[in-house]
Amino acid sequence: MPVNPFEQHLPKTPANYQPMTPLSFLARAAAVYPDHLAVIHGSLRRTYSELYARSRKLASALAQRYIGVGDTVSVMLPNTPEMIEAHYGVPMTGAVLHAMNTRLDAAIIAFQLDHANTKILIVDREYADVMREALAIAKVAPLVIDVDDKEFPQDAERTSYDDYEAFVASGDPEFGWRMPNDEWDAITLNYTSGTTGNPKGVVYHHRGATLMCYSNVLAANMTKHPVYLWTLPMFHCNGWCFPWTLSSVIGTHVCLRWVRADAIYEAIAEHDVTHLCGAPIVMSTLLNAPKEQQRALPHVVEFVTAAAPPPEAVLAQMANAGFNVTHVYGLTETYGPAVVNEWHSAWDSLDAAQQAARKARQGVKCAALEDLTVMDPDTMQRVPADGETLGEVMFRGNIVMKGYLKNPKATDESFAGGWFHSGDLGVMYPDGYIQLKDRSKDIIISGGENISSIEVEEVLFKHPAIELCGVVAKPDEKWGETPCAFIELRSGHTASEDDIIAWCREHLARFKCPSRVIFREIPKTSTGKIQKFRLRDMAKEID
Amino acid sequence: MPVNPFEQHLPKTPANYQPMTPLSFLARAAAVYPDHLAVIHGSLRRTYSELYARSRKLASALAQRYIGVGDTVSVMLPNTPEMIEAHYGVPMTGAVLHAMNTRLDAAIIAFQLDHANTKILIVDREYADVMREALAIAKVAPLVIDVDDKEFPQDAERTSYDDYEAFVASGDPEFGWRMPNDEWDAITLNYTSGTTGNPKGVVYHHRGATLMCYSNVLAANMTKHPVYLWTLPMFHCNGWCFPWTLSSVIGTHVCLRWVRADAIYEAIAEHDVTHLCGAPIVMSTLLNAPKEQQRALPHVVEFVTAAAPPPEAVLAQMANAGFNVTHVYGLTETYGPAVVNEWHSAWDSLDAAQQAARKARQGVKCAALEDLTVMDPDTMQRVPADGETLGEVMFRGNIVMKGYLKNPKATDESFAGGWFHSGDLGVMYPDGYIQLKDRSKDIIISGGENISSIEVEEVLFKHPAIELCGVVAKPDEKWGETPCAFIELRSGHTASEDDIIAWCREHLARFKCPSRVIFREIPKTSTGKIQKFRLRDMAKEID
Repeated sequence: MPVNPFEQHLPKTPANYQPMTPLSFLARAAAVYPDHLAVIHGSLRRTYSELYARSRKLASALAQRYIGVGDTVSVMLPNTPEMIEAHYGVPMTGAVLHAMNTRLDAAIIAFQLDHANTKILIVDREYADVMREALAIAKVAPLVIDVDDKEFPQDAERTSYDDYEAFVASGDPEFGWRMPNDEWDAITLNYTSGTTGNPKGVVYHHRGATLMCYSNVLAANMTKHPVYLWTLPMFHCNGWCFPWTLSSVIGTHVCLRWVRADAIYEAIAEHDVTHLCGAPIVMSTLLNAPKEQQRALPHVVEFVTAAAPPPEAVLAQMANAGFNVTHVYGLTETYGPAVVNEWHSAWDSLDAAQQAARKARQGVKCAALEDLTVMDPDTMQRVPADGETLGEVMFRGNIVMKGYLKNPKATDESFAGGWFHSGDLGVMYPDGYIQLKDRSKDIIISGGENISSIEVEEVLFKHPAIELCGVVAKPDEKWGETPCAFIELRSGHTASEDDIIAWCREHLARFKCPSRVIFREIPKTSTGKIQKFRLRDMAKEID
Repeated sequence: MPVNPFEQHLPKTPANYQPMTPLSFLARAAAVYPDHLAVIHGSLRRTYSELYARSRKLASALAQRYIGVGDTVSVMLPNTPEMIEAHYGVPMTGAVLHAMNTRLDAAIIAFQLDHANTKILIVDREYADVMREALAIAKVAPLVIDVDDKEFPQDAERTSYDDYEAFVASGDPEFGWRMPNDEWDAITLNYTSGTTGNPKGVVYHHRGATLMCYSNVLAANMTKHPVYLWTLPMFHCNGWCFPWTLSSVIGTHVCLRWVRADAIYEAIAEHDVTHLCGAPIVMSTLLNAPKEQQRALPHVVEFVTAAAPPPEAVLAQMANAGFNVTHVYGLTETYGPAVVNEWHSAWDSLDAAQQAARKARQGVKCAALEDLTVMDPDTMQRVPADGETLGEVMFRGNIVMKGYLKNPKATDESFAGGWFHSGDLGVMYPDGYIQLKDRSKDIIISGGENISSIEVEEVLFKHPAIELCGVVAKPDEKWGETPCAFIELRSGHTASEDDIIAWCREHLARFKCPSRVIFREIPKTSTGKIQKFRLRDMAKEID
């Protein structure tokens, strides 16, 4: 081998190599725009200088309690200023932030605290009751710190005697926070919702979080000083990394304790919001709000949505209301959305149905993802890009998780063959856009034929009386499984089971039509995803 | 040491770790927006699909000539489509791109070709004469490929029988280009202008180039689909990495063979240009163009400038003409501008002189730079942020070069103490913005007192008759050195040496005033920088 001159004495030194971390974005924002408004919450206002100082005080106070590399700090917080501070203050000590879904039950909370080996737990008083219950079950006994939201006072009995404001006040605003030793070091821990078995702890690192920030700016088409409304829970994939992204563009966080239509419209109008993210449920909330709560938007507002493709009617209504909707897709394992439905201006001239069909596709890899494909998981060969051949959606790149905490088997399985296996089934179109067709377990196999529950749902969604629907497999002696539809009707509309089945027969092959239609409220996760595993349980009980 | 659970079995795999490279941005752009206009040059139009295919063909043709890791491909090209292709095609083989300044003389070209050990040389016919001369001197004998620009035919005799179009045509558009083995691998080589001794070969890597792309998008406030006019030479720090940046935002390159006012105004108007970059000379070219060449701008155009702070009058004229000027600063060693004069909207209400004073400061670190400071190079202590204490500007971070090729001594010296030593002298203001005061060698030491040549120039620039000026040290028996001013007058204006000296005495301490004033054309580099070393040579000869 000849010597490569470009490898001779060109070493990594502190001058030309530093670990990437999103924490640096906050330090820069505070240095360059100290007086720019960083956080709005009720009547509270904090500048970047204040946000940075408070984050360092939190880090300092944690470090005084011996929190550092290898430790976990867990939080259960709504989208309040404390949650933003935790995204900086905890990793500033070298520790890992574990943000919990605020709708978890005590058993799951206890499992997560034990699995994460939580040393310190910060909890908003709204969740004090369930947290006390969880702590009674958990094996770990973390130091518990209560957050009292003075803007929206809560009256549940406190969990502990330690108060967040006093805790932060004990810290040093000049605390010399630590850069990660390596950009591969863990920054956060997010548990999957785990519809089967115990949830898995997804570990994020500083490198991925930093690249996700840059990628978010491109995907959301952000310029300097955006105003971002927190309709997406920050506990969900760390709010798709937007708590850090905002610092890179010196934006303003508009906190939102509860996702309610009046508060959203008010915030957009009063704070000149430019961007918000959320599940389809947020769009429904906005569109179905009483007229007196709705306010005119100051300009086109960017709405980034995930979890389910936005239906045609919703897209039209959102456009009418002044929102530009971008559809994205990802998993907890990919730091949130790593796939974006990149819109082509040429598609603007398509009719509404065609536009909705384009928008319903999940899209293409975002800038920081190296590769995205659909493969046969047995052969690890890419399926033909024909829009029809079903395969498993696979990811590869720097915004794929570090792995599952204390779960070598699941980590290895998920990365088998050098690709992250999403468990989602989809197709690839000739133009390289992917579309989800179902999660493996959501496929209904009837008489040996695969039925995509999404395909049946798409037909149902076009029925004028249907507000929301979920289709799952119902065990069947003859066919193995048949589709069973759960439906929420629009207010003021009626429809019978026979009406719905007749509608489906008009639009679907007979074997794909639901054998049963159940009218009831559909169980959803806190992020608005339909809980299909609950529907499956219900379907089993139906005669 | 307790075991850190966040380090147990969470390995780097191809699924979650990939080397960063800006080449991936082009692959993505071609996949997602194959029909988007990537390149405009005269009447030529190429889409992203075509740019990607041509880059892969170039890579394939190079690989067929055994070009790969460790090899250098040198180019001397104007801002034409071939130059963009070279930025992708060459690194796609694993080789390093060496882009030469098109105004170099034969001796320097020969030095660079030998030092870089050039295997293949691609040269535009405009430079055939000097290149033949250089090749006659050089020890290396690269395969030479001529570029014939059909849009702007050149009539110099060709350098070789190998034609670029035929060479590219021999390549495979489906060539499986190689990802770098490591993101620390070299991507390009840029020689410093080297005012003393031989030029140094600055090596860039894939990691830095990728991060510079993201950082450029933030600094230039780019959204999707910008239209970028090539007034900045691509041979200069690889055009500040914009040849790659444009692919990350799926922008359009508007090529420009020669930087002429009519062509610039025409391009802006016809192609709806959103961004351009360049030295102050480009601003002068635009502002001093004959009225009949000037065209109204379609919207505010972003102009990013470096090399010298824009004077107040120029800023006012640029604003009048419809440009928003952003001042940036960097060195070849920092991939181009790593410092940006981040503008505060509050400064919009300052008067013109105050705004110009703010804009004259070089600014703050850009997002991808980890740290920027001003230090006493002996003690490596930061100077007080008082806007007065002079020190050396120091950089640290991932957009600092890999080092100098085959120059361990210079590499080690430049990175001494874990910081890149810029050789530029400056101050830091209380708000963290830095301002250059001089390069070390541009300081004039008169009677033991330091005189900043920039300070004297600032006073001269305010004289109504002065178009351009450069101040350097002139040896002096009594004082050691005294300032000597070189001046270009505005057309239609006159001024005598005594007038100018009197003007300086009004505004400067007497010892800082020029002892001599010379009226003549000032020598400049091809990027518009005043060649102070030439002025110093001239000053020595003056009685």
